[in-house]
Amino acid sequence: MAVESVDSPILPGLVTQHVERASAALAEFGSDGLFLFRDSNILAFCGVPLAPSDRLVCGLLNRQGDIALVVPVFEAEIADTLPAGAHLITWKDAEDAYAAVAKAADLLGLSSGKILLDDHTWLATQHRLAQVLPKAELTIDPGVIAKVRSTKSPEEVDAMRTASEDTGRIYPLIAKHLQTGVSELELGRQVLGELKAAGLMPVGDLIQGGENASVPHRPAGPRLFRNGDAVIVDFVCRHQGYLGDLTRTFVIGAPSEDIKRAYRVVRDAQRTAIDFIRPGVACEDVDAVARSVIDSAGFGEYFSHRLGHGIGLDVHEPPYLVQGNPQRLEVGMCMTIEPGIYVPGCFGIRIEDVVAVTPDGCEVLSRDVPTDVSDFS
Amino acid sequence: MAVESVDSPILPGLVTQHVERASAALAEFGSDGLFLFRDSNILAFCGVPLAPSDRLVCGLLNRQGDIALVVPVFEAEIADTLPAGAHLITWKDAEDAYAAVAKAADLLGLSSGKILLDDHTWLATQHRLAQVLPKAELTIDPGVIAKVRSTKSPEEVDAMRTASEDTGRIYPLIAKHLQTGVSELELGRQVLGELKAAGLMPVGDLIQGGENASVPHRPAGPRLFRNGDAVIVDFVCRHQGYLGDLTRTFVIGAPSEDIKRAYRVVRDAQRTAIDFIRPGVACEDVDAVARSVIDSAGFGEYFSHRLGHGIGLDVHEPPYLVQGNPQRLEVGMCMTIEPGIYVPGCFGIRIEDVVAVTPDGCEVLSRDVPTDVSDFS
Repeated sequence: MAVESVDSPILPGLVTQHVERASAALAEFGSDGLFLFRDSNILAFCGVPLAPSDRLVCGLLNRQGDIALVVPVFEAEIADTLPAGAHLITWKDAEDAYAAVAKAADLLGLSSGKILLDDHTWLATQHRLAQVLPKAELTIDPGVIAKVRSTKSPEEVDAMRTASEDTGRIYPLIAKHLQTGVSELELGRQVLGELKAAGLMPVGDLIQGGENASVPHRPAGPRLFRNGDAVIVDFVCRHQGYLGDLTRTFVIGAPSEDIKRAYRVVRDAQRTAIDFIRPGVACEDVDAVARSVIDSAGFGEYFSHRLGHGIGLDVHEPPYLVQGNPQRLEVGMCMTIEPGIYVPGCFGIRIEDVVAVTPDGCEVLSRDVPTDVSDFS
Repeated sequence: MAVESVDSPILPGLVTQHVERASAALAEFGSDGLFLFRDSNILAFCGVPLAPSDRLVCGLLNRQGDIALVVPVFEAEIADTLPAGAHLITWKDAEDAYAAVAKAADLLGLSSGKILLDDHTWLATQHRLAQVLPKAELTIDPGVIAKVRSTKSPEEVDAMRTASEDTGRIYPLIAKHLQTGVSELELGRQVLGELKAAGLMPVGDLIQGGENASVPHRPAGPRLFRNGDAVIVDFVCRHQGYLGDLTRTFVIGAPSEDIKRAYRVVRDAQRTAIDFIRPGVACEDVDAVARSVIDSAGFGEYFSHRLGHGIGLDVHEPPYLVQGNPQRLEVGMCMTIEPGIYVPGCFGIRIEDVVAVTPDGCEVLSRDVPTDVSDFS
């Protein structure tokens, strides 16, 4: 439980959209029902910000678009954002939670149906489902959920645009507090304090200076900023369930020639990828055009991760912009574009924005957040 | 990524203990290997604070006690707490993570072995494992992990005692700031700020006043404390990987007779359960003795949850003190004892401590944290 207030749950209209699209996809896949397990799927299709723990929370959806949500009885109040008409089935600690699932399946006519299981369902859960639904055919979801969630409607893109704009509000605060002699942790505390006071609560944050920034996922630590440091600042904020994920790289004082050059190469790589994106392009090719810019500049070995990831109700979700992924972009897909150069033990640079694929290219959702936050010229 | 520094990982000697016990249990269960997936299992058996996300992290362990950990290449540095001699297999974004798992299985002689899968493994992961390990026999862990983790060694109990004592440090701070006109959220902010300044970072917290406390899992909100409120304060802190989980109930001003009576019944129920605990007692019977105290006082319908849960590297883990659970307590098992009375729309009371089963009863790990934080006499 967090002391902060709960996230505003997803807009009800978006839950309706997801359910309608899932119902249609179930028919297309020849299946009768969908078992929802991971938190983002319970939010997407039931509108409720609950997740399974040692106490079962799960959802069921059928081809007719009926929904049932199973929750511990004392979380029933949190489930009050469940759409009107949906079934809420509660269970008590002294009862078998899976008996409640069997009841949900019965209410939705799924007891003998073909049910696709959320691919993040735990094995222990699958095991119990098979016991309480002996006549149902339970198989792993081959892609219904990904199909619905990976292409966003205009209303979803609106929420993501706001999340990106909110995320962008961190950078002026960083600029205000970033100076030599301050630690990564201390800078984080100062900025998070101001963000909270402004009503913003990041769900992820990463501040890395100097050689610490050369390890992409290294958490903030006690290292003090020094003159000449490049500083990677990566934040994630949520708006009505949807996420923004941005990175900017600052420099303290005068950057070295290597840092200046690497920064400009990363910026070029990002722009090249953004210009390249349009419906029908393969994910691996978007990665490749950015990578070729960095390769050509001689930094290829230092761009050690994929170009980007899909984003929505999860920070990382399909589609992934990575070598070997032939998936083709469609209108409404939202992804981060985040090339980086990490020279081990020396420095790290990354620039990250979120784009939404449009009929003739893409919209940079964070376009009003300046890319250059320091002078690398 | 959190701006706070990473948790101190588990002590290396405890990882060795877990691996030795798991090896022995594998032999006992007639299996060759164990696939580790959820974060607490990767911590328990590999000593590394990493978890699977859209990028695979997982561990393998064989009967000889050899370990292999599979991580994305840029998290290799975080994996530096892996025991000496263990295999670290890294994979890059452009590579198949499951090829790295196949390599790990090969190194441990498990490619054709019987491998027990962590019961929190995702279906998608099981699906890919079956593809890359076609000759292995993959089945859900029938209890090796629970067997090792649910009984704690004296060194584990030491860590849990410190975690409980750390958690107890919250209550004097609450007492200092709790007053009418302050909101649950504001009290949380004040207290968390002081805790952080003291180097303590709770991993869970719940502050509920008045009628808000009558819903056991309701997060803190904007409600202002009023005279006569009972206030439930439930915090969780971590020490070297292990958790403390305590609840105390405060009152502002003079409590009503109902609140006073309910408080004393909850306290009696907790003491009765603690006095009852010893090796060989069934979990359901511990729940029952506490419940009978509350039933006898006429509050039975308001004790709406189980008496307690096992605790260790996870906040909630086996064994569960709940109706219908015949599991018998063993020396070293650690559980919360947390009876409560929740009168809907009126008030809530809960007292929670962590106990460790000893040869002749149990030790209350939080025994130095006073139970009564307000005057309910």
